[in-house]
Amino acid sequence: MTTVKLLTDEEASPEARAVFDDIRKTRKSDFVNNAWRAQANDPPNLKRTWEKAKEVMGPGTPLDPLVKEFIYLTVSIMNNCEYCIHSHTYFAQQKGMTMAQYNDMLRVIGLATEGNRMMTAMQVPPDERFKVG
Amino acid sequence: MTTVKLLTDEEASPEARAVFDDIRKTRKSDFVNNAWRAQANDPPNLKRTWEKAKEVMGPGTPLDPLVKEFIYLTVSIMNNCEYCIHSHTYFAQQKGMTMAQYNDMLRVIGLATEGNRMMTAMQVPPDERFKVG
Amino acid sequence: MTTVKLLTDEEASPEARAVFDDIRKTRKSDFVNNAWRAQANDPPNLKRTWEKAKEVMGPGTPLDPLVKEFIYLTVSIMNNCEYCIHSHTYFAQQKGMTMAQYNDMLRVIGLATEGNRMMTAMQVPPDERFKVG
Amino acid sequence: MTTVKLLTDEEASPEARAVFDDIRKTRKSDFVNNAWRAQANDPPNLKRTWEKAKEVMGPGTPLDPLVKEFIYLTVSIMNNCEYCIHSHTYFAQQKGMTMAQYNDMLRVIGLATEGNRMMTAMQVPPDERFKVG
Amino acid sequence: MTTVKLLTDEEASPEARAVFDDIRKTRKSDFVNNAWRAQANDPPNLKRTWEKAKEVMGPGTPLDPLVKEFIYLTVSIMNNCEYCIHSHTYFAQQKGMTMAQYNDMLRVIGLATEGNRMMTAMQVPPDERFKVG
Amino acid sequence: MTTVKLLTDEEASPEARAVFDDIRKTRKSDFVNNAWRAQANDPPNLKRTWEKAKEVMGPGTPLDPLVKEFIYLTVSIMNNCEYCIHSHTYFAQQKGMTMAQYNDMLRVIGLATEGNRMMTAMQVPPDERFKVG
Repeated sequence: MTTVKLLTDEEASPEARAVFDDIRKTRKSDFVNNAWRAQANDPPNLKRTWEKAKEVMGPGTPLDPLVKEFIYLTVSIMNNCEYCIHSHTYFAQQKGMTMAQYNDMLRVIGLATEGNRMMTAMQVPPDERFKVG
Repeated sequence: MTTVKLLTDEEASPEARAVFDDIRKTRKSDFVNNAWRAQANDPPNLKRTWEKAKEVMGPGTPLDPLVKEFIYLTVSIMNNCEYCIHSHTYFAQQKGMTMAQYNDMLRVIGLATEGNRMMTAMQVPPDERFKVG
Repeated sequence: MTTVKLLTDEEASPEARAVFDDIRKTRKSDFVNNAWRAQANDPPNLKRTWEKAKEVMGPGTPLDPLVKEFIYLTVSIMNNCEYCIHSHTYFAQQKGMTMAQYNDMLRVIGLATEGNRMMTAMQVPPDERFKVG
Repeated sequence: MTTVKLLTDEEASPEARAVFDDIRKTRKSDFVNNAWRAQANDPPNLKRTWEKAKEVMGPGTPLDPLVKEFIYLTVSIMNNCEYCIHSHTYFAQQKGMTMAQYNDMLRVIGLATEGNRMMTAMQVPPDERFKVG
Repeated sequence: MTTVKLLTDEEASPEARAVFDDIRKTRKSDFVNNAWRAQANDPPNLKRTWEKAKEVMGPGTPLDPLVKEFIYLTVSIMNNCEYCIHSHTYFAQQKGMTMAQYNDMLRVIGLATEGNRMMTAMQVPPDERFKVG
Repeated sequence: MTTVKLLTDEEASPEARAVFDDIRKTRKSDFVNNAWRAQANDPPNLKRTWEKAKEVMGPGTPLDPLVKEFIYLTVSIMNNCEYCIHSHTYFAQQKGMTMAQYNDMLRVIGLATEGNRMMTAMQVPPDERFKVG
């Protein structure tokens, strides 16, 4: 149950439809997922978001696309975003994530989230040595 | 201002002191950071946490140690943990993180956290295709 | 699937039933939504919460009721509260929110949540000029 | 204590310096706050973020600039972002927020955040009537 | 650095001053902490909040006051609220919390927060048996 | 819809199956809930987590098992973890939680989460008196 309509190709405005077409072309797939169909209700924002996503998540940046998927998925898990957990677990698998890597990622997330909470609970101040700025 | 005492080597119990020694040996450094000095107030838990951290974050697992640092740092940023943001930005730099990689990580975090919120705001349901379980 | 019973008018205690009646009278509608039926399991707290909600969200305060709905909905989106996102998107529409206003609100939420995370990631200190307290 | 350098005008790259200039021109003020000086470490992202912020927060959109500041500040409070709470309380005051409006906003945030938590605690399902999508 | 003035007894309005007096009487102490001095900027809300806090946290309810402090402190740790972590660690100690109990509470928080994240990461559905509502 | 398979006894590895057996023996019940069936995809981590959970949540520690359930449930509510809210509301009831205690816990959570947010919104500094570390 969404709060907005998930727009079909027919319902989308020409500006939104052009973004759908670029998604298809970039991914070499006819599939346009719900994330974009929901955001199509605000076409200029859809366009800006898609162009940013294409640039940030694509190849040619300092981090490997799969590493970027691990980071995206970690954020989604921390934000408790049901949609994003499902979509980015899938995208990570598409980009080659193995079950062993997935388990390893979960172990780090588990360790970190517990460790973070302990530091917060005891209000531990950063050591002088960590001042990198 | 912590809620517990940060225990010096002299104040730590023998069980906690043994953990400090293993931290020094593992890291080949005399430095024991505040995270462990705070947790030394509960020696059995300190020991369990350190042994888990050593195993999870060390070499020899499916993910590269630097990739694991990116994941740990991402969790820390999402949890708004001041201590952990400072310590793990430092640890990532120690393991070779460049400024270009850091910026790239931040771009993914920014994109993901905004995208997550949009999906949550509009309560978008996961596409059938993403069902990987 | 709730963790408590959603109480019908018949199941509610007289104290809770009196709150239901005031909800109906205040809203000029026979509809009592699940939020109140769940909270009816603790009648004194139900009464306190309803009286506070009526005062805080109603007309006659410095902010316009629709502006207050934008704030309530923003909190709900940030808290990832499924129930509250649905109910307050509906309430905002009832109070006149247009699709263009909704999109505008989402753009601000998206910008802010990304910007917030960047400041947290880099632990940027507030400028002197911002000291308003 | 930041994790990056806050770049002065002299340290910023030409691309970042051009953004600083546009910030000054747009705000009709010589002051460039730390948020931009931190983000100047990634000039292309600085430019993209500033242009988006200028468009989203400026006049000429469906919501009044002060209403957008209330939304931005609410997000910042929910994200526990120290920098953003200070900067956007200041910006809201600059745009005319009165103490009475500020108190009113806080009342709504308080009511909403408690109400949200109760719905989450009891896992209350959205009423059919709220289905607006 | 607050965003509002922490009001002294002299600066507080008569309505707020009456709340300060009741805080002193209830706690049998002359000390009025910053939480109330900040909220004194909105006297009617200060009064409502104090009366609720007095009723909810005081003796005479189903849970023991110390158990209620554990719950309050746990919420504060999860919300990353610096002020509240300090004040409620102090209040819990005033009500008799031992270091052993504190450590035990932290162990549960650590276990739970890691376990929660794993369930969220893997989107595990609740077992039928847990349906208690 | 999970992101991993919930492993049956037959599908679980011998190491995971041994954990299932210990769960059954410890709880004196044949029921193994989904939390463990999901985590069985990483058998060594399953074993470590179960052994920690058994030690932390069991009898013989400074806090009473029911008090520990209140803390666990509070964390789960704050983390918005659907699975954990259901399972630990159930476990708390199994350990004797009454409806009056449950309502009391919710009142404290509601008070605390609102109070936390007010302190964060106004960036109130901890009083000197609270310095317990």
